[in-house]
Amino acid sequence: MPKQVDHRDRRETIARALWRVVERRGVSQLTMRVVAQEAGISLGQLQHYFASRSAMLSFAMDFASEQTSLRVGQGLTRLGDRPHPRDVLRVTLAEMLPLHADARATSRMSAAYVLEALHDEAVREQARRGLVRGRALVEELVRQAIADGHIGPDRDPATETNLLLALTGLTPLLELGVIEPGDALTAIDAHLERLFR
Amino acid sequence: MPKQVDHRDRRETIARALWRVVERRGVSQLTMRVVAQEAGISLGQLQHYFASRSAMLSFAMDFASEQTSLRVGQGLTRLGDRPHPRDVLRVTLAEMLPLHADARATSRMSAAYVLEALHDEAVREQARRGLVRGRALVEELVRQAIADGHIGPDRDPATETNLLLALTGLTPLLELGVIEPGDALTAIDAHLERLFR
Repeated sequence: MPKQVDHRDRRETIARALWRVVERRGVSQLTMRVVAQEAGISLGQLQHYFASRSAMLSFAMDFASEQTSLRVGQGLTRLGDRPHPRDVLRVTLAEMLPLHADARATSRMSAAYVLEALHDEAVREQARRGLVRGRALVEELVRQAIADGHIGPDRDPATETNLLLALTGLTPLLELGVIEPGDALTAIDAHLERLFR
Repeated sequence: MPKQVDHRDRRETIARALWRVVERRGVSQLTMRVVAQEAGISLGQLQHYFASRSAMLSFAMDFASEQTSLRVGQGLTRLGDRPHPRDVLRVTLAEMLPLHADARATSRMSAAYVLEALHDEAVREQARRGLVRGRALVEELVRQAIADGHIGPDRDPATETNLLLALTGLTPLLELGVIEPGDALTAIDAHLERLFR
């Protein structure tokens, strides 16, 4: 392995190969051997970057979260200065749903990861921390919106946060073509409409 | 295989073994060989009942849906005659979340099934039909509640149905211990409170 190959770059290339395996072939095909093959490297090379399947999966999930955050950040930039919290939530929720190719890859990765977390203590702890952190960011936004008078003071921030995150439950309906992307956005807007004053 | 062993019974026993594999070991371990082992039969015997992994998985999912419907039915019986549609929805949604052992098994089965459906055309079609059917039942209930004046006439039945089904999105929060069962029920109640007049 030439030294000039950046370690982080190579790990991201492997993570993307892992996503492709999850997206196209399913989590049941997710072995280090299959990911190495998809990434076009040997199993030995893969093991140089990730000591275990769990370590590889955890990195791929962290990278998926980062990519989602980046997309959300780009969406927020388009909203201009001091965007309304309703628009911030709309952009955030939309990027968490499989509404376009990039979001679909990270959404499938995330679903596979939660299932894996149920049977792997290390993955579980990391998945839990990630979800706690994401949930805290949304709750902070809700609390601030209440403080700023955008959301009624009678609303419970914790419950509203859980209801907002629950909107990712539209995912199976979208993935199986039971509803269209437009239906999901309409549902999100209807929910936000009632949350905000 | 003795003739007196009821075919359906044996298939249900295998389906339960499959659930246990999904629940305890994860979908990545879900092979016909592992399920046969868990069910305490030979791979040949398993293949007598299911010609393929897809067929086995589809039956296990149908059986999980049936079991969920049974639990919902039992919950509705406890509500007595002519229950309020809000209570019907509350019982239905609560049984779709992993709030107790039986519901957890069927919920994990369902999550694994959706992921599998993305990579298997036959599974996908069956999963889609199941979801369309379930969604139609909820929408019919919403439409009837609007007709009976329980839900405002300004509400769009399709959107309200999607928002109700989205509440299953609380599942990862519950599975990873980010929220407690009581928090999920509070969120469901808050949502229903605003849906009904």
